[in-house]
Amino acid sequence: MEEQTAIMDTYAIGIDVGGTTIKSGAVDSQGHILARSVADARGSEGPPVVIQQIIGTIEELLPQFRDRRCVGVGLGSPGVVSLDGQTVSHPPNLAGWNDVPLAKEISRAVSLPVKIENDANVAALAEARFGAGVAHRDFIFVIWGTGVGGGIILNRQVYRGSRGGAGEIGHVSIDHRGPACNCGNFGCVESFIGQRYLSARTRELLANLSANGGTSRISDLVEGNLDRIEPYIISVAAEQGDRVAMDILKEAGELMGYALASVVNILDIPTIVVGGGISAAPQFVYNAIESSLRTRVLKPHQPYVRVLRATLGNAAGIIGAASLVME
Amino acid sequence: MEEQTAIMDTYAIGIDVGGTTIKSGAVDSQGHILARSVADARGSEGPPVVIQQIIGTIEELLPQFRDRRCVGVGLGSPGVVSLDGQTVSHPPNLAGWNDVPLAKEISRAVSLPVKIENDANVAALAEARFGAGVAHRDFIFVIWGTGVGGGIILNRQVYRGSRGGAGEIGHVSIDHRGPACNCGNFGCVESFIGQRYLSARTRELLANLSANGGTSRISDLVEGNLDRIEPYIISVAAEQGDRVAMDILKEAGELMGYALASVVNILDIPTIVVGGGISAAPQFVYNAIESSLRTRVLKPHQPYVRVLRATLGNAAGIIGAASLVME
Repeated sequence: MEEQTAIMDTYAIGIDVGGTTIKSGAVDSQGHILARSVADARGSEGPPVVIQQIIGTIEELLPQFRDRRCVGVGLGSPGVVSLDGQTVSHPPNLAGWNDVPLAKEISRAVSLPVKIENDANVAALAEARFGAGVAHRDFIFVIWGTGVGGGIILNRQVYRGSRGGAGEIGHVSIDHRGPACNCGNFGCVESFIGQRYLSARTRELLANLSANGGTSRISDLVEGNLDRIEPYIISVAAEQGDRVAMDILKEAGELMGYALASVVNILDIPTIVVGGGISAAPQFVYNAIESSLRTRVLKPHQPYVRVLRATLGNAAGIIGAASLVME
Repeated sequence: MEEQTAIMDTYAIGIDVGGTTIKSGAVDSQGHILARSVADARGSEGPPVVIQQIIGTIEELLPQFRDRRCVGVGLGSPGVVSLDGQTVSHPPNLAGWNDVPLAKEISRAVSLPVKIENDANVAALAEARFGAGVAHRDFIFVIWGTGVGGGIILNRQVYRGSRGGAGEIGHVSIDHRGPACNCGNFGCVESFIGQRYLSARTRELLANLSANGGTSRISDLVEGNLDRIEPYIISVAAEQGDRVAMDILKEAGELMGYALASVVNILDIPTIVVGGGISAAPQFVYNAIESSLRTRVLKPHQPYVRVLRATLGNAAGIIGAASLVME
C-alpha cells in the first residue's frame, strides 16, 4: 500500500462555500479542475445541515479518483476564519454559525486533513499559484462583484494579519461624509462601487437616458429588474458597447483607483490583480483603475503600479481552496 | 586587541538627519542616549556639505567612548531609502540629493558599518524596541507633527514593502473630493490634520472667537504668528485647557481615527502607537482617535483596537537610528 501511494498522482479537493451553493472540485497539482460537484448550501438550516452538504460533495468526488491520492480538503468560506484554519465565525448568510469547528467535523467524516481560509483570500491564493499573480511575489488582490473584497499576497502567501481579517479592500474609505456602508462605517469604497450604489447610479443614468428617448443594454440584460444590476451585468453591457454601462464603470474604476492609492501608499505593493464579476469588463475599465491609481498614489510608486485582470474567474474559489492543502 | 573588544560594552551612533539640523547620539544597548552632538544640516549647500556635517557629529562622539566599542552608525533620513539601507533618493529639504550613496561615503570616512532607514520607520523601530511598542509584536506607528508619517512594525521589524516606501499613513485618503495634498492627490488625511489645514482651521475658529470677544492660548503661544501653529502648539494649548485647541484636536483626532480604520481593515493590526508633536497632547485626543477608530473599523476588530501614546518623544529618531546597527 505504501509503495503504491508513493507513485500515485495526487489531487486535492477544493470547496467554495457560498451562502446558497457549495461548489466542490478535485484539483490536480497544476491547478486543473478534474471534476466538480455542487450542492445547495441550505444555509438557513444551520451548521449540521451545511456540514452534511459539504461532506456529500466530497463523497461524490472521492470514488472518481481511485488511481490518485487525495492529499486533503481545502475550504474557502465567507466570514472570519481562525488563524489555524480550523474554525469559522459569523459567516454572512449562514444562520446560527458561531465558532463552528468546521475543519474537525469534516475531517472526522472523510478521514482527510481539512483546512479553511476566508473566501477572498482563497481566490487571491489561486491567482498567486495558477493565475494572474504567478509572476509576482507580492500583490494586492481585489474581488469586485456584488461587494468588494480582497486579499494580500506577501511572499506568495496570504498575509492574514493578527486575527485573519486582513485585506478588506472594500472597507477602505474614500469619503468620511459618504454614504452608509453595510459594515457600519461611512464612505467605504464598497458603498460607492458595490451593487447597491451601482444599481442606484444606473437607475439615475437610465432615467436621464429614457427622458431623452435613449435605451440601454443594461435594462435588457436584467429584464427590467434594475435591482439585479451588479458589476457582471454592467461589464457585459459595456463589452457590448453600451454607453451608460461604460460611463458607470469608468467612474467606478476611478473610485476603485482612488481607494487603491491609499492601499499602495500603506503597503508599497504596486501590483494589483482585480477579479470578481468585473473581470468580464472591457480593458478600458482596468485602464481607468490603473490611471486613477497612478495619478493619485505617491510619486515613487507611480512608475511601478499596474492593474492586472484575474484569469481564473469563478474557478478561483475551488482552485484556491484546493491549494490550501497542496503543499 | 581582540580580547579587549570582546569584553567591552558596546554602543551605536544614531543620527536623525533633518532638513535643518543633524542630531546625533551615542546609544547603549538598552536604548539610553549616552551623549549627543548637533550640527546644522546646511541642506541647501548640497550632499557633500551635508555628509561632512554628519561625519563631524560622529567624530565628535567617538573620542568620548574609548572604553566602549562602537558597533556602527545608523541614520534616519527623510526621503526614500533603498532596500539595502545604503542610498537615499530625493529627500525633501535636501537640495541636489539624487541617489546619493550616503552609507558608503560615511562608512569610508569613519571606518564603521553604516545603515540608513526612512525617518518615520526609524522612530517606529525605536518605539518597538524601547518605547510604547515593546509589548507588541505588530503595530502601526503614526508620527503626527507638521505632516503625518508612519511606519508598520511586523514581527518586531519594519515592514518596508517592495521599494522601502510602505507605511505612508498620512497619504491615506479620507475624501476623494477633498483638499489638494502636497503629494498631488486630494483628501489625504495629512491635508486635513497636517499643519497647513490645522493652521487654517485654527484661524477660522480664532476669528469666530475674537468676534465674540474671546481669546485663546494658541495666539499667545505662537506670539500672534498663526502660521506657526502645528500639532505641538495646539497640544500645549489644549493641555492648558484652551477650548479652541481642544475642539480642533478632537475633530482632528476623529479624522485620524477614520483614516486608521482603513489601515486596520487592510492590515488587521489593531495596535496603534501615535507619536510626533501630538504626543504632548492630553489624553482626550488619544481617546478621540481610539473611539473614532473603534466606531468605524470592521466589527471583528472593534474589541481589539487601541491607540497608545509614543513614549520616546524626539529621542526616537536617534534611538531608532542607532538600533538599525545594533543587532
